[in-house]
Amino acid sequence: MATSPARALPDVDPLDALLRRAAATPGTIGFAGGLPSARQFPRRGMIAAFVGAVAPPEAAALQYGWPEGEATLRAWIATRLRGRGAPVAPEDVIVTSGAQQAIALAVQLTCRRGDRVAVDPESYAAALQLFRGRGLEPTTTLTGACAAYVMPALANPRGGSLGQAARERLHRARIPVIEDDAYADLPFGGAVPPPLLAQDRRRVFHVGTFSKTLCPGLRVGWLVPPPHLLRRALARKSEADLQANGLAQAILADFLGRTDFDARLRSLRRYYGRKARRLVDAVRRRVPSWRVAMPEGGFSVWVETDVAADEGAFLARAVDAGTSFDPGSWFRADAAVAPLAFRLSFSAVDDDRIDEGVARLARAWRGASRRRSAATASHVRAKPAASNPDPDESQS
Amino acid sequence: MATSPARALPDVDPLDALLRRAAATPGTIGFAGGLPSARQFPRRGMIAAFVGAVAPPEAAALQYGWPEGEATLRAWIATRLRGRGAPVAPEDVIVTSGAQQAIALAVQLTCRRGDRVAVDPESYAAALQLFRGRGLEPTTTLTGACAAYVMPALANPRGGSLGQAARERLHRARIPVIEDDAYADLPFGGAVPPPLLAQDRRRVFHVGTFSKTLCPGLRVGWLVPPPHLLRRALARKSEADLQANGLAQAILADFLGRTDFDARLRSLRRYYGRKARRLVDAVRRRVPSWRVAMPEGGFSVWVETDVAADEGAFLARAVDAGTSFDPGSWFRADAAVAPLAFRLSFSAVDDDRIDEGVARLARAWRGASRRRSAATASHVRAKPAASNPDPDESQS
Repeated sequence: MATSPARALPDVDPLDALLRRAAATPGTIGFAGGLPSARQFPRRGMIAAFVGAVAPPEAAALQYGWPEGEATLRAWIATRLRGRGAPVAPEDVIVTSGAQQAIALAVQLTCRRGDRVAVDPESYAAALQLFRGRGLEPTTTLTGACAAYVMPALANPRGGSLGQAARERLHRARIPVIEDDAYADLPFGGAVPPPLLAQDRRRVFHVGTFSKTLCPGLRVGWLVPPPHLLRRALARKSEADLQANGLAQAILADFLGRTDFDARLRSLRRYYGRKARRLVDAVRRRVPSWRVAMPEGGFSVWVETDVAADEGAFLARAVDAGTSFDPGSWFRADAAVAPLAFRLSFSAVDDDRIDEGVARLARAWRGASRRRSAATASHVRAKPAASNPDPDESQS
Repeated sequence: MATSPARALPDVDPLDALLRRAAATPGTIGFAGGLPSARQFPRRGMIAAFVGAVAPPEAAALQYGWPEGEATLRAWIATRLRGRGAPVAPEDVIVTSGAQQAIALAVQLTCRRGDRVAVDPESYAAALQLFRGRGLEPTTTLTGACAAYVMPALANPRGGSLGQAARERLHRARIPVIEDDAYADLPFGGAVPPPLLAQDRRRVFHVGTFSKTLCPGLRVGWLVPPPHLLRRALARKSEADLQANGLAQAILADFLGRTDFDARLRSLRRYYGRKARRLVDAVRRRVPSWRVAMPEGGFSVWVETDVAADEGAFLARAVDAGTSFDPGSWFRADAAVAPLAFRLSFSAVDDDRIDEGVARLARAWRGASRRRSAATASHVRAKPAASNPDPDESQS
């Protein structure tokens, strides 16, 4: 995404258009997108695995495969989940076209147009988009929801984990739970909690992916549905796209068989943890009024302001200044929530560019604040001034 | 699929279980699945393309991409369609996770649960499965249908093309048309007709794939939706799985740029045409009572019998005899239609094994006929004998 060309689409979302422009502009220090660092792609290992997959004359990796996925890969996924306390057999795993498809299948099996689906007040943007596209209303209340979509190990965008009380509340609600474990392997402290799946096989749809720990371009994720829904989940998967990419599955099966995955994870945690600290330090130093917590893991931080500023205007200024961020409105269950917030992904930014990126963001923010102040001054009789004046204005 | 291990799934379709057993049995001469021949996979070219895609440090092919797909690939697809008379720009093309996803998106945009979708009396099994899974009823009547799903260039399973009168009827019906062009490039005579898309951009959803002309394992297809629905189609695509496989798209973009695709198609048409003739000859010679037409192209023939035989029992005998076929009921809009029919795919069977495969099928058929005759004899007072006695019985 960082390197894809921006392209004109009819009637495109203006925020999306800005981010496409940023991605296409050389020199941009982009904090948008939640991309893993390309420096961590095991390119040499992938080439070896690919050649191995395509070399045999029958080249099964290039042929049609079964909808449930490649056997070795399913076994690997099941073994990892058993290592975290979840009773999962290879036959319970459906290999999907990324975690996104796994979420889509889970919601297709649990919710109907018009239902409400429970989410955190801030949740994964692409999941919210999916829910709304399917005619579901995101809500922060468990009661009456068709399902709860949660990221217990490590939540996106806040970077925290679900506490014991919240886990129990979820369990007591007795509704289907879509457990998105995309970032679970990347807590900086190294302790990966047991998945909800370990506690409840009957209600939990467990979702995982190789996009964060290996490469998103492979588009391989997985779904472990409740056993009584396995057959239906598989039918829906097959109807959606017949099967996940055979080539990517073969590459993964070979690569994982030859890799010390835990050593890889330890290295990734150090790598991303260092970037997270740099980003949090830079944000606190350069814009003290922004609230940001050091994340427990993952790729991003969630930044909150006290100002009900124009998100699009701020993003436009940021892109002009040579940086970018993910608009906070994309992550909010209630899109009407006012104070501006946004997500910054440190994951794909080189260490020595993080501070400069935040400096550009701060500059864009001060510029936007000046405009806001001017606007407030000219409308001072019509509207009361913002109750939370922007203290950073004084820095400009 | 031919090489994937069969695996136990709870409550699996018994016909599917039989085909999985056949695929997992060495020495089986399988006529099921509509698989391209692995001998035609350009394995060396794929390796070169893969290394090229993964070599640059930014390795964009391994990173997230935009939902609409890779720019070079979209341009290539648009150019091919323009060459067939359809006014298509690169921006009109959405790269999908195979043709199946393209069909799923089209039907999602045109039909609602409870609607009827118009299809040929025999149609593509996975499309019928999708329609039924989405709560749509396949019908052979255009009137009142939410959309028509057709394969005008080359229909699966019958291997014929849509005549001018039928094209005009479709046009006059003024309903959305899902044009599945999966086999369009593979007519044995070489003349590829213009797509319906060339005649009507506003109502036609055009679907294509690289699964038949290159490799199914890539899982890359495309959708050209009507222009006024492009944005919505793209949103649904993004919600479904974010994007098509980046790796496969990069491989294709590179490979297609270095390949004389038309020369490849000419060679494939000769290759598959030869197999088709061999299969049709063998069928006519070994079981004269079966009705089979020489297909105009593609991978398969449709075989009709006059006997309302038990499909599962025949398939079980065929698998025991070391062969397989695709059950005709999977392809029928009206699953209750009685006389047994089935699809035979010659595409993945080596030339010198085709006759032996048909010999095994004929043996299984005679065995099944004997059982049927015995059953008829013992119930002769309860039920009238079949109005179409099986002449092949005399051959056993």
